[in-house]
Amino acid sequence: MTAIQDQLPNNHCYGCGADNAHGLQIKSHWQDDECVCRYTPRPEQCAGPLQYVYGGLIASLIDCHSNCAAMSNYYRLEGREIGSSPEIWCVTGRLTVNYLAPTPIDTEIELRATLEEVGERKTVVKSRVYSGNTLTAEGEMIAVRVPQSWRETG
Amino acid sequence: MTAIQDQLPNNHCYGCGADNAHGLQIKSHWQDDECVCRYTPRPEQCAGPLQYVYGGLIASLIDCHSNCAAMSNYYRLEGREIGSSPEIWCVTGRLTVNYLAPTPIDTEIELRATLEEVGERKTVVKSRVYSGNTLTAEGEMIAVRVPQSWRETG
Repeated sequence: MTAIQDQLPNNHCYGCGADNAHGLQIKSHWQDDECVCRYTPRPEQCAGPLQYVYGGLIASLIDCHSNCAAMSNYYRLEGREIGSSPEIWCVTGRLTVNYLAPTPIDTEIELRATLEEVGERKTVVKSRVYSGNTLTAEGEMIAVRVPQSWRETG
Repeated sequence: MTAIQDQLPNNHCYGCGADNAHGLQIKSHWQDDECVCRYTPRPEQCAGPLQYVYGGLIASLIDCHSNCAAMSNYYRLEGREIGSSPEIWCVTGRLTVNYLAPTPIDTEIELRATLEEVGERKTVVKSRVYSGNTLTAEGEMIAVRVPQSWRETG
C-alpha cells in the first residue's frame, strides 16, 4: 500500500516530504478510521539523556502525520486520488502536545491519528503516540486548507 | 556572555544540547526579563515549499528554548550558577504552538520568551517567534521539574 506521503507531489517538508533526502521521511497509512505512522528514531534524536527522544521530534511527528491525514481526507471527500490535480494542501494552525511519559529512543514509535472535526477549511486531528504499548504523548493539530498560491509566494 | 546551554552539563538534546554535534545547538540568553534565542535555519529544514521552515522546527525551537529559560530560572531562584550541583532539569509537560504566518527559511529566526507562572515544580513559558519584524508563531510551554533520577532510568 503506497504511503500518503509517496503520493504528494513536490513535498520537500523535513518531516513528511518524500522529496527531502535529509528529513524524517515519515510514512502514513489509513487503517479503517485511524491513520497510522511508525517511525524509528535515529540515535542523534535524543533528549538530554541519550535513552529518550527529544520532545521536538514527537511534536514534529504529530504535526506532519496529522497534516497528511487531513490532506488525504480532503482528497477522499472529493473522490480523488491523493496528489491529483488540483493539489490540496494544508498548513498547521495550532499544535498541542501533551507529554505523558518519556519516549525511548531504541523502540519504534507508533502514531495513531483520528479526525475529530472536518470542516471545509479546517480539520482537527487527534493523535496518540505509543512506544510499544505505552502511550507516551497525545496531540491535537488543527490543519488549515490553503490555496495553491500559498506555496508559490514568500 | 555564555549561553544557558553552554552551562548545562551532559545535555545531549537534539534541540538544545551543547553535547549533540548533529542537533540544532540553540543558544539562549536572558535580556532583562526576556529570554532570547536566534537561530539560522538550514536549507533542509524546509516545509513543503522550499522557502519556508517546517512547523516541527518552530515547535522544537519553542520547546527547547522555553525549557532552558525555565531551568535557568530555577538556578537563579536558588542563587546558584547554571549547571552547578545538584543539577536542575525540567521536561516538557505540554507544548502549544499557534502558527500565525509562514516563517521564511532564508532569515534568522528570533524567539523571545517570558515566564508567565513560576511554581516550585512547574513553569509556564510564553514565546513569540519573529522573522525580522513579523510575528510568525506564538508558543506556550509548561516545564516540569524532574528529579535527577529521571535522567538515569529508562
